[in-house]
Amino acid sequence: MTAEARPLRVVVVGGGFGGLSAVRGLRGAPVEVTLVDRRNFHLFQPLLYQVATGGLSPANIAAPLRALFKRQKNVRVLLGEATGVDVAGRRLLLADGELPYDVLVVATGARHSYFGRPEWEDLAPGLKTLEDATRIRARVLAAFEEAEREEDPARRREALTFVVVGAGPTGVELAGALAEIARHTLRDEFRRIDPADARILLVEGTDRVLGSFAPALSARAARDVARLGIELRTGSLVTGVDPRGVTLRRGDVVEEVPARTVLWAAGVEGSPLGRLVARAAGAGTDRAGRVVVEPDLTVPGRPELFVIGDLALVEPTSGRPLPGVAPVAMQQGRHVARTIRARLEGRPGRPFRYVDKGSLATIGRASAVAEIGGLRFGGYPAWLAWLFVHLLYIVQFGNRVLVLVQWAWSYLTWARSARLITGTNAETPSPTGTSGAP
Amino acid sequence: MTAEARPLRVVVVGGGFGGLSAVRGLRGAPVEVTLVDRRNFHLFQPLLYQVATGGLSPANIAAPLRALFKRQKNVRVLLGEATGVDVAGRRLLLADGELPYDVLVVATGARHSYFGRPEWEDLAPGLKTLEDATRIRARVLAAFEEAEREEDPARRREALTFVVVGAGPTGVELAGALAEIARHTLRDEFRRIDPADARILLVEGTDRVLGSFAPALSARAARDVARLGIELRTGSLVTGVDPRGVTLRRGDVVEEVPARTVLWAAGVEGSPLGRLVARAAGAGTDRAGRVVVEPDLTVPGRPELFVIGDLALVEPTSGRPLPGVAPVAMQQGRHVARTIRARLEGRPGRPFRYVDKGSLATIGRASAVAEIGGLRFGGYPAWLAWLFVHLLYIVQFGNRVLVLVQWAWSYLTWARSARLITGTNAETPSPTGTSGAP
Repeated sequence: MTAEARPLRVVVVGGGFGGLSAVRGLRGAPVEVTLVDRRNFHLFQPLLYQVATGGLSPANIAAPLRALFKRQKNVRVLLGEATGVDVAGRRLLLADGELPYDVLVVATGARHSYFGRPEWEDLAPGLKTLEDATRIRARVLAAFEEAEREEDPARRREALTFVVVGAGPTGVELAGALAEIARHTLRDEFRRIDPADARILLVEGTDRVLGSFAPALSARAARDVARLGIELRTGSLVTGVDPRGVTLRRGDVVEEVPARTVLWAAGVEGSPLGRLVARAAGAGTDRAGRVVVEPDLTVPGRPELFVIGDLALVEPTSGRPLPGVAPVAMQQGRHVARTIRARLEGRPGRPFRYVDKGSLATIGRASAVAEIGGLRFGGYPAWLAWLFVHLLYIVQFGNRVLVLVQWAWSYLTWARSARLITGTNAETPSPTGTSGAP
Repeated sequence: MTAEARPLRVVVVGGGFGGLSAVRGLRGAPVEVTLVDRRNFHLFQPLLYQVATGGLSPANIAAPLRALFKRQKNVRVLLGEATGVDVAGRRLLLADGELPYDVLVVATGARHSYFGRPEWEDLAPGLKTLEDATRIRARVLAAFEEAEREEDPARRREALTFVVVGAGPTGVELAGALAEIARHTLRDEFRRIDPADARILLVEGTDRVLGSFAPALSARAARDVARLGIELRTGSLVTGVDPRGVTLRRGDVVEEVPARTVLWAAGVEGSPLGRLVARAAGAGTDRAGRVVVEPDLTVPGRPELFVIGDLALVEPTSGRPLPGVAPVAMQQGRHVARTIRARLEGRPGRPFRYVDKGSLATIGRASAVAEIGGLRFGGYPAWLAWLFVHLLYIVQFGNRVLVLVQWAWSYLTWARSARLITGTNAETPSPTGTSGAP
């Protein structure tokens, strides 16, 4: 077999929205695709906050990668951890081996960033993985339990104070869900505390919530947030986090907020593979660790090396860089697949162009904001649009009727079915074993 | 207020089947009930194997204790860990305090026992908690992943060999579900291995499976097990477990079985609180750590101290001791509630009598055995009976229509919706972060 006869080897790292779209776009193409991910599932991150707040189970928003591609015969899925790239030798380096490629697509996304304060991570967990979500779920529920046991009023108040840092979509969703849990889901369940006494603070460094939306929608969202009983603190920076709470600074005013639960939704940075790829390929990165790519999404001088999704920074020809949202990643994944197909047929690739179909963010039950095709609206219609778009996407992944059933049930009853405190601490065998039995 | 006017303080430790029934049985009674559990949920243990094999999510078989009792106003739920009992002072000792009682009901159940080889626990995990189940799920799925990556045929075979130790109901269910995963669920998902090549051994020390059933039903179950392609090894003892496999002994024949995944379903022992209670109250325990109780389920000489469920050994007036199953625990819980009510009204308590309504065990899809009211049958009718009984119980706990939806879907498609490899290892931040994104 000559080198020309061998099918092109395409390696895609990361089974998120970008990677998945790239692989799907290559269905039927005369290439050998290897999809590498550390995890065995695709995660529908936009609904991660619902796992963190007990509305959905982890499996509801995760689809096994192998199941997704069982019928696409030119794909193999490999569970593995990428540790670097040998750009000259065209090999992806793995923790337990290496993978030669003809085309490499790096789509490993972003993780939360603590702006140079990594020690805050344990104190103020962020929300990027399923484990993050179940850990946050356990912390939130345990805080109410602690309040119920606590005799000291000040400490009880501390246990019932929740601070969400960052009022982007994730922060707003988290705060909204916390408010619903406190005011509705847990109602009547405690004997000494009233969960509705919980204090929920939403802290934002800029001057408005949902900063990527139009100012009028930010104002609308701020009103909805207030209506849910959430204290919104815009223009406030977090200058300290410790086990007893956070320190906020607004201008010259410094405030200590005693709080047991602090959740971080304030910033993201590119996954570490991005910097490794950039260094190996001589490409640039921005402060958040995103790799600067050409308009066709390749690394400069390396047409066989694509970076897409949250990890990529497309040099903006005009205006702002693209937002780190699923539609951008999906369109970029499809663009990469089209470019590879074009090259196979001897046609030139084209620059990537993002088609903005609109933005949605939900705040709580029947409350959301939407910017769709020039239209800007909020409230129930926006919430229905949000529901529709998310269900539409998630039904592509098999048995997601469960999500619909759970949403319908929760909507009618305010109940949340996945309220479990599980995890490593609970896992430790105890000397006396009072866990439920038989 | 005089001592007589104060409502009787009933403390129930353990929110399993026994504890729950005791608390429910006291609804409306002039008592103050405190339900103490380490976990914030009641676990429907009979379906735990379905979580371990990816068919259900943890939340599907767990109901928050507070939600269960929000309307029963004489109950408060306390998350806490019991560390002992001061029998003379009538105080339950907790890790972070103590709880005075007038009546104490100990219902902390059992956990798996390794017959004096606790070092086997990490190598051959048992199935008692949700964390056990998600850990087993991750191990089973990771074994197939490892086989797919493995170049060496012997090691690949090792990765594809699963040993289930113990052929009681849990062992049979686990082995049956593993067979279904290997032969159906994962079909077409791998490119180098055929999951159907997986070898599943079911090892049993006695001479038959499901030893608590009639011999004819054991024979029937053994045939069903063989039909699923499971290798049944009765009369075989496990004499060694190490990371590469197990050592079996049958008579004088010793066999090494190389296997990466060993699951333990061979024995249980009472939770440690049982021995502490027995020692404090001067009561006896059997070898498995069960507390010997009077016919009315109280500890001898301590009418205010009840032990029920898997942790109790009712002196058998005739025949065998009661089996460690949910119906026994539930009936005992109700009996305790009746006894407490009788005493409040000045009537004497009665001895506990177990009403055996029958036994069911499932082997796999459309395959089960049943002994109900003298009738013994297997196959599809037994499986339907099993489904009916389990759904009937689980629907008592809120939104369990999800279980039905998932079962129906799995039955039609052979799919399993909760196939996630999650947990502490995956949680560790990696240097390169190739996890799915954005």
